[in-house]
Amino acid sequence: MGRDRLLVIGGDAAGMSAAAQARRLRPEMRITVLEQGPDVSFSACGIPYWVGGVVADRDLLIARTPAQFAAQDIDVRTGTRAEGIDLGAGTVRTGTGETLGYDRLVVATGGRPARPPVPGLDAEGVHGVHRLADGADMRAAIAAGAKRAVVLGGGYIGLEMAEVLRARGLEVTVVLADPLPMAQLDPDMGERVCAAMGAMGIDVRPGEPVREVETDADGVARAVRTDAGAYEADLVVLGLGMGPEAALAADAGLQLGSTGAVEVDRTQRSVSHPEVSAAGDCSQTWSRITGAAMHVALGTHANKQGRVAGSVIAGTPARFAGVLGTALTKVGDTEVALTGLSSAAAEEAGYACRAETISATTRAGYYPGAEEITVKLISERGSGALLGAQIVGGPGSGKRIDVFATAIWAGLTAEELAGSDLSYAPPFSPTYDPVLVAARVSSRIEQG
Amino acid sequence: MGRDRLLVIGGDAAGMSAAAQARRLRPEMRITVLEQGPDVSFSACGIPYWVGGVVADRDLLIARTPAQFAAQDIDVRTGTRAEGIDLGAGTVRTGTGETLGYDRLVVATGGRPARPPVPGLDAEGVHGVHRLADGADMRAAIAAGAKRAVVLGGGYIGLEMAEVLRARGLEVTVVLADPLPMAQLDPDMGERVCAAMGAMGIDVRPGEPVREVETDADGVARAVRTDAGAYEADLVVLGLGMGPEAALAADAGLQLGSTGAVEVDRTQRSVSHPEVSAAGDCSQTWSRITGAAMHVALGTHANKQGRVAGSVIAGTPARFAGVLGTALTKVGDTEVALTGLSSAAAEEAGYACRAETISATTRAGYYPGAEEITVKLISERGSGALLGAQIVGGPGSGKRIDVFATAIWAGLTAEELAGSDLSYAPPFSPTYDPVLVAARVSSRIEQG
Repeated sequence: MGRDRLLVIGGDAAGMSAAAQARRLRPEMRITVLEQGPDVSFSACGIPYWVGGVVADRDLLIARTPAQFAAQDIDVRTGTRAEGIDLGAGTVRTGTGETLGYDRLVVATGGRPARPPVPGLDAEGVHGVHRLADGADMRAAIAAGAKRAVVLGGGYIGLEMAEVLRARGLEVTVVLADPLPMAQLDPDMGERVCAAMGAMGIDVRPGEPVREVETDADGVARAVRTDAGAYEADLVVLGLGMGPEAALAADAGLQLGSTGAVEVDRTQRSVSHPEVSAAGDCSQTWSRITGAAMHVALGTHANKQGRVAGSVIAGTPARFAGVLGTALTKVGDTEVALTGLSSAAAEEAGYACRAETISATTRAGYYPGAEEITVKLISERGSGALLGAQIVGGPGSGKRIDVFATAIWAGLTAEELAGSDLSYAPPFSPTYDPVLVAARVSSRIEQG
Repeated sequence: MGRDRLLVIGGDAAGMSAAAQARRLRPEMRITVLEQGPDVSFSACGIPYWVGGVVADRDLLIARTPAQFAAQDIDVRTGTRAEGIDLGAGTVRTGTGETLGYDRLVVATGGRPARPPVPGLDAEGVHGVHRLADGADMRAAIAAGAKRAVVLGGGYIGLEMAEVLRARGLEVTVVLADPLPMAQLDPDMGERVCAAMGAMGIDVRPGEPVREVETDADGVARAVRTDAGAYEADLVVLGLGMGPEAALAADAGLQLGSTGAVEVDRTQRSVSHPEVSAAGDCSQTWSRITGAAMHVALGTHANKQGRVAGSVIAGTPARFAGVLGTALTKVGDTEVALTGLSSAAAEEAGYACRAETISATTRAGYYPGAEEITVKLISERGSGALLGAQIVGGPGSGKRIDVFATAIWAGLTAEELAGSDLSYAPPFSPTYDPVLVAARVSSRIEQG
């Protein structure tokens, strides 16, 4: 095939999945991975739990080391930054002045914490939750006696950081621009999350976008100012979402999509330069429900997209099947999960939608440990097609979102799901699982 | 419509669901329920946990009382046994000598513990796990000092009873005819269950069908004899499965199916007498996968079938959509779940099948409480259609079966499921949920 030199830029989930899959399918391929940081294949999602001390050791977050990849004949070069791509010449220039030729290139440069143009947001003491070094910095700040934390943003990173910092005894304030945390939820569900955070002693400040991070004489963050006031902080956490890290690709002339991420086809190849693939947080993806372009920074998609890229490069057909936007997190004992479209997103996408909310218990009501669970199900009026689901509840609630995700993935209606044969035993669910109750209520004939 | 007198025989899940649904849709209907026992709407599935003391109070197992139904204008007559049905006259004769006319009849006589023709199986001290009185008897036996229990059968009732009796400190022996417990599982998965039981100190005796229950001079069970020996017992538990209680229906002339249960169409109406409906454990159902007739005694199906029967009687179209055979239980901390066809059942049904087994963890490997989970996925060779799944693992494993059940229900292939957007967060799953790993491995191109 002639295409025997694969170069991968970025050594996290997408890049390493692409490399590993290509190696699996094409033992003769020469594979090189450039990673600017010190580690590959680490779990960014685990950083909050390392900061919180739930996970004791940084190294536990590293799934595989460069040496392990080397044993698979994948040449991983950490501390090596890709400075420029020459698409015409088929070369990549590194920070060390080297120029590497490729036959096939995977751009997997990942994401970066969103940093809106707010004064002081780049100050020392403002921490992303992105690299292991971020986690180390926050741990150091706590060890040095940080008492007050302000978390910017109420998405899942914000929630997780607020939880772990509170659990470590810090005073935690969360400031967010949206009227409620977890803005992808419908408001009635978001209110439940907000209440759960309040019950943990987290000071939630909705409708207060950060206006400035105030610094001391040394340029260290000391307070977060919103329109409502200033919140003192020994530690500021950036939880304003993740954007694509696509500058390298854009500078090279790769087409970006409307989300600012590299635009790819369903085989993860660049729409403008099919000899280049892009995968993971730097690449644009699409909604399985509406077909709309989306940018979702999540390890699960990155892994799958990387595999698709690696397969296609190795000559084995594969395609990425889109995303629903499934998300799962917890704040204390309250689990929060969603998939598909919210009511607002469904209406925005042109659906006449129906939303039903039910409350039930996670186990048979008489079984110890039965916890309240609230399920909201969004379906298309008339057809009954499932469009989205949201769950807030106690332990055992969140993972039930996967049943809805699977049902939406498969195109089931509420009525079809309501008839399905889900498991039941008293330690695990009421006779009608809450998933079925929500589906049943959503499939009742609409009244007058 | 003229059909305004609904008579329901049997006041448990199916019968009461039928009555409640008919009432909801037809406020003017006269609805009477005959129940031979003292209670309606109780959770038979909760009996093991009441015996075990996990559930403290018998009354917790009663979902609704006759008085609550009376408030809905449903006349529930407990302690009233239906002795005969006259299909021609449209009447039911009760044990109290009354004759009740009906326009529509629902037979919901339930199931009964299988009692093979083994000497002594009807002796005092041999307990079903069927009625609340069974639970009370076992609790009394334990309170009176029972030390040794022998459980007959290794299905989920056997497992649950073995667990709770062991937890209460009894010596527990489980004798079963099959080579392994949970015989619907493939052997490699059944071995895991057997090992978990052994680790709890339960003495499992596979391949030893009960030959006789030996009794003392007073006719009380004292030992269980198999071909391998005799096991002393203060308490013998019947866990040999549930059969349909269909004698009343058969005597009346209603057609029974090959399973010995009342044969019904998909609207739960008797195939021989459509003015009579049957639902729940006394009725025959069908496999959604193969179309074959099945008898499955489970509250979930009973509830749904009762609702269908009640809807149809009230003039609102409804149909039962079949079963997969989903089941979930636990023995100690080991959760056991299955849905659809085992490898053997798939082959029996004419499928060229492929079975893949994977091991993973329930949470991110580094997150505290990550437990081992083993997933076996059975799919059709070639098409990749999902046929069945089995799970054995630690806390958090079992309910994942619902994702497979939904995928099978919807007709997904392993590859389609592997691409689906399931939730991920470190406290809840590895980046690739075990469900996805199993699907991915099952969708790999088969090797030469």
